[in-house]
Amino acid sequence: MRKLYAIGIGAGDPEHLTVQAIDRLNRVDVFFVLDKGAEKADLVRLRQEILDRFVTREYRVVLVPDPPRDRTPADYRAAVADWHAARASVYESVIRSSLSPDEVGAFLVWGDPSLYDSTIALIEAVLARGNVAFEYEVVPGISSISALVARHRTTMNQIGRAVQLTTGRRLAAGWPEGVDDVFVLLDAHTTFDRFTSEGLHIFWGAYVGTPDEILISGPLTPALASHISQTRAEARQRHGWIMDTYLLRRPAE
Amino acid sequence: MRKLYAIGIGAGDPEHLTVQAIDRLNRVDVFFVLDKGAEKADLVRLRQEILDRFVTREYRVVLVPDPPRDRTPADYRAAVADWHAARASVYESVIRSSLSPDEVGAFLVWGDPSLYDSTIALIEAVLARGNVAFEYEVVPGISSISALVARHRTTMNQIGRAVQLTTGRRLAAGWPEGVDDVFVLLDAHTTFDRFTSEGLHIFWGAYVGTPDEILISGPLTPALASHISQTRAEARQRHGWIMDTYLLRRPAE
Ligand SMILES: C[S@@+](CC[C@H](N)C(=O)[O-])C[C@H]1O[C@@H](n2cnc3c(N)ncnc32)[C@H](O)[C@@H]1O
Ligand SMILES: C[S@@+](CC[C@H](N)C(=O)[O-])C[C@H]1O[C@@H](n2cnc3c(N)ncnc32)[C@H](O)[C@@H]1O
Repeated sequence: MRKLYAIGIGAGDPEHLTVQAIDRLNRVDVFFVLDKGAEKADLVRLRQEILDRFVTREYRVVLVPDPPRDRTPADYRAAVADWHAARASVYESVIRSSLSPDEVGAFLVWGDPSLYDSTIALIEAVLARGNVAFEYEVVPGISSISALVARHRTTMNQIGRAVQLTTGRRLAAGWPEGVDDVFVLLDAHTTFDRFTSEGLHIFWGAYVGTPDEILISGPLTPALASHISQTRAEARQRHGWIMDTYLLRRPAE
Repeated sequence: MRKLYAIGIGAGDPEHLTVQAIDRLNRVDVFFVLDKGAEKADLVRLRQEILDRFVTREYRVVLVPDPPRDRTPADYRAAVADWHAARASVYESVIRSSLSPDEVGAFLVWGDPSLYDSTIALIEAVLARGNVAFEYEVVPGISSISALVARHRTTMNQIGRAVQLTTGRRLAAGWPEGVDDVFVLLDAHTTFDRFTSEGLHIFWGAYVGTPDEILISGPLTPALASHISQTRAEARQRHGWIMDTYLLRRPAE
């Protein structure tokens, strides 16, 4: 039977790899890599660095073409569903054509595969189509938010309090009910800007864990918000892309 | 200058250790271990297994006595604050007496140091007292919730949705507003029992990552809730202790 791994590779630092991830990397015949074009060459380079550093056996790399995606759909959820179905069909054929029935394939997943990533859903979708059989295993990884708070030397939660993980899009709809600590991922619009007069503290990080890491924290005043926005815009300009995440904390008393 | 590390060791599987954690373990002169008595001997054994397997240099282990704690206080937050102050004072003296000024000390922290753990707050409290100076670094680890969902091969979030991390005590006050996925830690009372007629799905795990791991998942009916409660009670009886956590999911449509 074919076997697939979804392996969390941490959020930017090759030293985030776990012993388990390194063990699984060394059982893999074929690494499937999503071909997103030249855009994020830095991320492709990091993946290659991980393979070069930790894999001691022969392997093949298969580029998987990413189906085109409607970025400004009328119905967001329907568009995502269509796109996932198209990807499942592409992956199904790549798995059938590139992996022989006794081989092991793997997806290297940024951060932790469980957090705002579609690899597990994609694997389940391929299985559900019923045209190719395989076993699969998920290997957890250090997420960007875990890396963020470690670098800021703070915790996710305040004592006995709840924590929310959310997206920029959702935060734009307002501060979530009943929580004092909110992690924001996938925010293209510096949504923290809307919360500068509420006595919050921000812990912000871009390219966390990489040599380009930028960390900024402090009371979320208009001045600090604009400092972060400007830093973010300049970094994005310089690198051609950015990955940033942040924790907004309302001090518990 | 003295240096301290708070090192995340993952949630039960020694293979959760990261390359970074192993690197830091091998710079340590003194490991500080909280002496909680015989109660959780299995956990002490796992820590020792990690040191035996991954540390290749000489080190000392210093047991730190845990100050007594009022388990049924009138004012919960005040009691926790008192207890933290007492611990800070104990740690301050242990650091001063057991670590020479040029040495490196470490705390091995279960799971990820950022999640429902007091080590970082404790280190900050010792620093704030101003009687001993040191640098410190936090090394992120695989958390129990990340391990839980990996073993269940599911994700933390549904597409574009928010996630809440909370405690059993808080969940007892009601389902949190505005989220479809709720992780519950520190629940001594099988609080999921109160949510058996709401169309939820549960992903439950005890001793996740260890050889004693138990995983149960499915639609959260009264029958499944009582099956989990019974499994939990039996396991707790057998081991003398239990560590369990779960995800409650409200399917998004
Ligand atoms: C598609 S999600 C994937 C998250 C990933 N699975 C994880 O565990 O972190 C991508 C988002 O993660 C965050 N992110 C990932 N890596 C990051 C890094 N090194 N520094 C800052 N943010 C990061 C950003 O918010 C980005 O928009
Ligand atoms: C004091 S908190 C520490 C959490 C830890 N820092 C982490 O990252 O998972 C202890 C709680 O974590 C959960 N937990 C920790 N390890 C676990 C494991 N191996 N299996 C199940 N639950 C676990 C349980 O809910 C337990 O009550």
